[in-house]
Amino acid sequence: MVPRYSRAAMTAIWSPEARFGIWFEIEAHATEALADLGVVPRSAADALWAWWATKPEIDVAAIDAIEAVTKHDVIAFLTWVADNVGEEARYMHQGMTSSDVLDTCLSVQLVRASDLLLADIDALLAVLKRRALEHKYTPTIGRSHGIHAEPTTFGLKLAEAYAEFSRNRDRLEAARADIATCAISGAVGTFANIDPRVEAHVAAKLGLSVEPVSTQVIPRDRHAMFFATLGVIAGSIERLATEVRHLQRTEVLEAEEYFSPGQKGSSAMPHKRNPVLTENLTGLARMVRGYVTPALENVALWHERDISHSSVERYIGPDATITLDFALGRLTGVMDKLLVYPARMQKNLDRMGGLVHSQRVLLALTQAGVSREDAYRLVQRNAMQVWESDGQLSLLELLKADADVTAALSVEEIEDKFDLAYHFSQVDTIFERVFA
Amino acid sequence: MVPRYSRAAMTAIWSPEARFGIWFEIEAHATEALADLGVVPRSAADALWAWWATKPEIDVAAIDAIEAVTKHDVIAFLTWVADNVGEEARYMHQGMTSSDVLDTCLSVQLVRASDLLLADIDALLAVLKRRALEHKYTPTIGRSHGIHAEPTTFGLKLAEAYAEFSRNRDRLEAARADIATCAISGAVGTFANIDPRVEAHVAAKLGLSVEPVSTQVIPRDRHAMFFATLGVIAGSIERLATEVRHLQRTEVLEAEEYFSPGQKGSSAMPHKRNPVLTENLTGLARMVRGYVTPALENVALWHERDISHSSVERYIGPDATITLDFALGRLTGVMDKLLVYPARMQKNLDRMGGLVHSQRVLLALTQAGVSREDAYRLVQRNAMQVWESDGQLSLLELLKADADVTAALSVEEIEDKFDLAYHFSQVDTIFERVFA
Amino acid sequence: MVPRYSRAAMTAIWSPEARFGIWFEIEAHATEALADLGVVPRSAADALWAWWATKPEIDVAAIDAIEAVTKHDVIAFLTWVADNVGEEARYMHQGMTSSDVLDTCLSVQLVRASDLLLADIDALLAVLKRRALEHKYTPTIGRSHGIHAEPTTFGLKLAEAYAEFSRNRDRLEAARADIATCAISGAVGTFANIDPRVEAHVAAKLGLSVEPVSTQVIPRDRHAMFFATLGVIAGSIERLATEVRHLQRTEVLEAEEYFSPGQKGSSAMPHKRNPVLTENLTGLARMVRGYVTPALENVALWHERDISHSSVERYIGPDATITLDFALGRLTGVMDKLLVYPARMQKNLDRMGGLVHSQRVLLALTQAGVSREDAYRLVQRNAMQVWESDGQLSLLELLKADADVTAALSVEEIEDKFDLAYHFSQVDTIFERVFA
Amino acid sequence: MVPRYSRAAMTAIWSPEARFGIWFEIEAHATEALADLGVVPRSAADALWAWWATKPEIDVAAIDAIEAVTKHDVIAFLTWVADNVGEEARYMHQGMTSSDVLDTCLSVQLVRASDLLLADIDALLAVLKRRALEHKYTPTIGRSHGIHAEPTTFGLKLAEAYAEFSRNRDRLEAARADIATCAISGAVGTFANIDPRVEAHVAAKLGLSVEPVSTQVIPRDRHAMFFATLGVIAGSIERLATEVRHLQRTEVLEAEEYFSPGQKGSSAMPHKRNPVLTENLTGLARMVRGYVTPALENVALWHERDISHSSVERYIGPDATITLDFALGRLTGVMDKLLVYPARMQKNLDRMGGLVHSQRVLLALTQAGVSREDAYRLVQRNAMQVWESDGQLSLLELLKADADVTAALSVEEIEDKFDLAYHFSQVDTIFERVFA
Repeated sequence: MVPRYSRAAMTAIWSPEARFGIWFEIEAHATEALADLGVVPRSAADALWAWWATKPEIDVAAIDAIEAVTKHDVIAFLTWVADNVGEEARYMHQGMTSSDVLDTCLSVQLVRASDLLLADIDALLAVLKRRALEHKYTPTIGRSHGIHAEPTTFGLKLAEAYAEFSRNRDRLEAARADIATCAISGAVGTFANIDPRVEAHVAAKLGLSVEPVSTQVIPRDRHAMFFATLGVIAGSIERLATEVRHLQRTEVLEAEEYFSPGQKGSSAMPHKRNPVLTENLTGLARMVRGYVTPALENVALWHERDISHSSVERYIGPDATITLDFALGRLTGVMDKLLVYPARMQKNLDRMGGLVHSQRVLLALTQAGVSREDAYRLVQRNAMQVWESDGQLSLLELLKADADVTAALSVEEIEDKFDLAYHFSQVDTIFERVFA
Repeated sequence: MVPRYSRAAMTAIWSPEARFGIWFEIEAHATEALADLGVVPRSAADALWAWWATKPEIDVAAIDAIEAVTKHDVIAFLTWVADNVGEEARYMHQGMTSSDVLDTCLSVQLVRASDLLLADIDALLAVLKRRALEHKYTPTIGRSHGIHAEPTTFGLKLAEAYAEFSRNRDRLEAARADIATCAISGAVGTFANIDPRVEAHVAAKLGLSVEPVSTQVIPRDRHAMFFATLGVIAGSIERLATEVRHLQRTEVLEAEEYFSPGQKGSSAMPHKRNPVLTENLTGLARMVRGYVTPALENVALWHERDISHSSVERYIGPDATITLDFALGRLTGVMDKLLVYPARMQKNLDRMGGLVHSQRVLLALTQAGVSREDAYRLVQRNAMQVWESDGQLSLLELLKADADVTAALSVEEIEDKFDLAYHFSQVDTIFERVFA
Repeated sequence: MVPRYSRAAMTAIWSPEARFGIWFEIEAHATEALADLGVVPRSAADALWAWWATKPEIDVAAIDAIEAVTKHDVIAFLTWVADNVGEEARYMHQGMTSSDVLDTCLSVQLVRASDLLLADIDALLAVLKRRALEHKYTPTIGRSHGIHAEPTTFGLKLAEAYAEFSRNRDRLEAARADIATCAISGAVGTFANIDPRVEAHVAAKLGLSVEPVSTQVIPRDRHAMFFATLGVIAGSIERLATEVRHLQRTEVLEAEEYFSPGQKGSSAMPHKRNPVLTENLTGLARMVRGYVTPALENVALWHERDISHSSVERYIGPDATITLDFALGRLTGVMDKLLVYPARMQKNLDRMGGLVHSQRVLLALTQAGVSREDAYRLVQRNAMQVWESDGQLSLLELLKADADVTAALSVEEIEDKFDLAYHFSQVDTIFERVFA
Repeated sequence: MVPRYSRAAMTAIWSPEARFGIWFEIEAHATEALADLGVVPRSAADALWAWWATKPEIDVAAIDAIEAVTKHDVIAFLTWVADNVGEEARYMHQGMTSSDVLDTCLSVQLVRASDLLLADIDALLAVLKRRALEHKYTPTIGRSHGIHAEPTTFGLKLAEAYAEFSRNRDRLEAARADIATCAISGAVGTFANIDPRVEAHVAAKLGLSVEPVSTQVIPRDRHAMFFATLGVIAGSIERLATEVRHLQRTEVLEAEEYFSPGQKGSSAMPHKRNPVLTENLTGLARMVRGYVTPALENVALWHERDISHSSVERYIGPDATITLDFALGRLTGVMDKLLVYPARMQKNLDRMGGLVHSQRVLLALTQAGVSREDAYRLVQRNAMQVWESDGQLSLLELLKADADVTAALSVEEIEDKFDLAYHFSQVDTIFERVFA
């Protein structure tokens, strides 16, 4: 976890206080279920909840001090709770193993992290939608291979991003469901010393589903899927960030990350306004993707469990979710305030002297009876002049001055082919598909 | 693609013949839709389908020869089709771009690959279920950290694998849906020169959904999710393979990959029967996981597309699906014929001299009124003797001979605590959850 | 292996014929050493070499047919050799295990692959040096964050690439040395049944060093290091490819991948000349990097070996080396023929109206006695006008017309600060460092 | 960075105080060089060093507070220094850019980290050597595929680990040299405003070499190679950790991680002594390997630099080095105190009833004139009985009782073939190779 790439709400999920709080709730809910089953006295559950109702501060240092002796984090925690709750606490944890607590706690943490990330995506989607509608018909050049291709609109670019993050939202929902399970099944998952109804009760209270069959742990294919999904989302972040970085290039400059009035780009070079936020997002995406590999390697635990996954999760649990949360927030900010320059878009669109319309003229000539070979030759000989002039000449003007062309097409017909709006006839249809 | 790790049906999906066949179908369906819209003559579509009905052999060499000249695979293909179909073929591909064909074709291939993989998982699930039921109550030691923990059953191990691959099946269904889209939207996705109804028609014919908004290509977050899902499945394969490898270790030998009667393990060492299939699966899992990273890096294409994803997909499209298909098939074979040794499982279970039951005796002494401290001391002093004898002594016998123990518990009560069946009371519940 | 991304010489290294040829040489050299030690008759070695001198064709199909029965590739090969050589062949392989042959063969293959890759890098270095010298003083704008920064030369860009690939050459030499070892040490590496002098002899004959201590196999940290090094080289390929892609963007167009005269960029759009080769290289780099992860996972084999590494190496041995070889060759071709447009570079350099010189004017004003605050304000008020004019105005002209500026600096002094050559005073020093 | 997997010395390298201290030294050395060149007054350098000689405490909070305003970390730092040093500090940083400071600082940090890691490896090597010599002739079974193969010694296993970590030491030395460079070359690496002799001076003072040609930054192929090397070392850690985990399995139990006298494995299960340290190392290795991928992706920065690498390095700089340092230390501790059980090794070695010697008997029969077919049959019929008895029968005893065998070999000759020492004749040779 790197503080400068962290936000408070997500970081709080991974604090020791939050973890111990979840542990307590798992234990208390389980004790309640055990009381319902007559295994422990009702007073045991009551005592736990009564103490919890006082909103006691969790003394992490005290628990750590006990762990330094017991070398066991769950036992240390239970001891500290017992010191506070008193005699009745001895019924806690009956028939359970540490992993029941640890794994169910991790599920709760990942669910909470998912909920923050889903909210992050919702915020991003709202911004993307607003900006897409704002620029629904802002013409801009579409580029394949970094080379001008045909016109599109800036709104369509944003609609594409919206659709992509909508898919990511669905994937994250699925990933959330995948890790939202509870296991309280004992040392090797047989429920030998604990009734499955305890598990069902705790699961229901925590908003989790029951793990159908666990070993000592919740199986790690669930977590692998979760972190892989975060990696895909990171890829989408990088894609949109890369788009902004390209648009802000000096020679392109169709959009820019927001600069506040009076802000200095550089003390020495007044022209420097760098897309540092989206470059930063590119790097953060690399990190979130990098966590996918160890998560995938965590699946193949030995037999009913080995503990190799644990250290990995101490890193990637916080690091992947905190980084992605920060990145989504930063991307939302970038897109929200993005400075968009329609005039520059138009200028770039025009910089090829109308070459982007050559295909339509070609087609029109053919439909007017010129053979395809001749039509191609006629367009090309004019297009090449425009190309060589680096867009200083105008294809439209050259064509209108070419007698062979005007023999087949009237000036009006030629001009009609240079209609930018022609390219946008289906924008509405696409927006319907995306935002309806 | 490594031939020895390939199966025919999956490999066929990626053959040039299959690819060109899909291209033809996309073009012919599109031409049909264009005819419906009155853009091209009905006869054009009819001519294409009439030729296709003759089941023409696709001459890959001829197409390659044309590509060597045109440097463009789709144009080469169209030229070859035109050479065969004749004049009417010139209406093909109207308003489309190469990516419309290439990307939709890739979707079809990945869908077909998914269907084979789903069938592979189904076959594996069937085997796992059969073997799980067969060994529902076969006792075996559960191990955490590779160390004996508490008893479980071999059927439960297999039920866990069944549940895991059921989850993988669901994930693969979702991944299949993610890449099952069709885009026929023109150079930069604006439908400037082609009606969206063409896309809808082709999609319906090919069993795909319509891509809501494409650029020049179908967005690659879809493919990233697909390959990431294959990586998770590979993780599960490695997990089960690792279990078999452990069980076959000389000192454990609770199960073995099948050896045919008369088969030789080694010409020199008659005792060598190696788990080579599951070791091989471990390596194959590494490969399938390794393809996840380039797939994730493919997402961030520049602007409306760059072509960097294409070379990656020429590798991982076939390699990931063919390898996973082979691996699933191999794993199914291993599990189907796995030699299971219940007697050895029981022997291993007993090798600790009954120590696995120490926890229950401790509890019983406490319930009989012995203080927890005394109870622990009583059990421990006997358990340590068993431990130090490497399981040659019996905890049960020692306890029955310990006057302090028998003062609290009758011999019958002590013996009752060594009941293996106690651990299996919830097996039925778990099987209900998994197989119901 | 994808045929279109493969070259013949590298592919040949991985052919069955090449592999079997290396196996034979290992066996024959070992037999010779055994004869030297008096363990087998001299005639055995002589018979093997006599047959080999006839340059026999290796009948892969026949060997495969035997393997289909024996299920063991090395035994199948030995059988086939014996069928050809006759009785004397029975002394082959004495005291050896299959891995002695397989692993030493892999070393030979990787050494040969390294030699091709080293030659590839040499060819690339030669091209980069030539082009760097050609453009040693071709001015171009240096960009940080994609934004114009300060002037540099195109030669310096290429010198940087040269230095980077020189480092990669050194790394590859080290990686080659790492995997250039020979192990002929028996079943678990103890030399129980074979004299270490056999290993020494074979190693010397094959140009390998002796593995100091092997298990059944050569340890896989060596191979991990090898493939990791290929991954780093792939990163450098992507970097240079990305530079070309950027330079070819429509708005930048300072350089282009070569297009042959008469070549068509697109049948419909005559302005399309896409950097498809460097985009392709970007994808290939992803693949080579993707093979690093499974190679790293191959290190932790169980005990004296498990065979999980084998399947991984059947993929990445050929795939990583063939792909990298192809990529290096393609990159060399791109750089060799790269179309460089100095005029466009100058035009881009000038497009900011001379803002790139603002820092020097600021410094000169300070040195002329203007306070830093005032100097900054003076430069800024002129620079901002240039900035807002999108480079239509000239900073030099504005400054010369600013009375407050000319009060401190003469026109000659101001003009002197707009000297592009000032930025290139150390180019020679840097070239000395890189190419000396 | 996870506190529980961190050690103080390595963590200190990455503290803000350490970073600012290195920044200061870079700036002061550069100022000194500028004074030598007459660019700035000698008094400027003197003032800086005079202040530094007072060992001032670095006020991180104050610097952060300035950064909150300037949004620029290097400027904030320079401002704070100037506040402390006074007027003379204004000559600092002349002609330099932030990256000159940042990148050279990172080099210093990675060099320091390398030195700690090299010391870690030295400590590990010392322990491995001591334990290898201690167990040079401790017999143990060699295993391929997890199955008993032939005898080896425990010392040989450790010698193999020693050789592997010796290689890793060499690799780390090379990686250290790769990142030990200094760049003070200005905005785009042209030295336009700073003399290369400044760079040379600072490099010499900091023990770095000069970067031959930089852009705005030190090229990231160097760092990629560095982190890739850490990934390889992590693979070796996992390998040795996996060996210990296997040896500690209940059924094997040939070695164990140290347990202090009186330590409890589990409150409930006295037999539980889990290899948790080596399992933990397995997970940590996954993390260090996981950082390789983002490091490789960092190479392809745009043009003269983009800043995407920076966020990645803020994570993996500390995380990879701190984790590896901790892991090496933990592994050294595990190997230092590893409980080794020679008796159990012998017991396991014998558990196959002497089958490990079958190959030698076979060979001896052949040399005594029995045909290979008959010899194989004779050995096999006895070996199979032993195999089926699960090692309860003795191959030696059966052979001695087999009249067909004793017809060819005397009892003494047979017994001679069961000589374990035979396998260890070359141990000394191997140790010479490894430790000489």
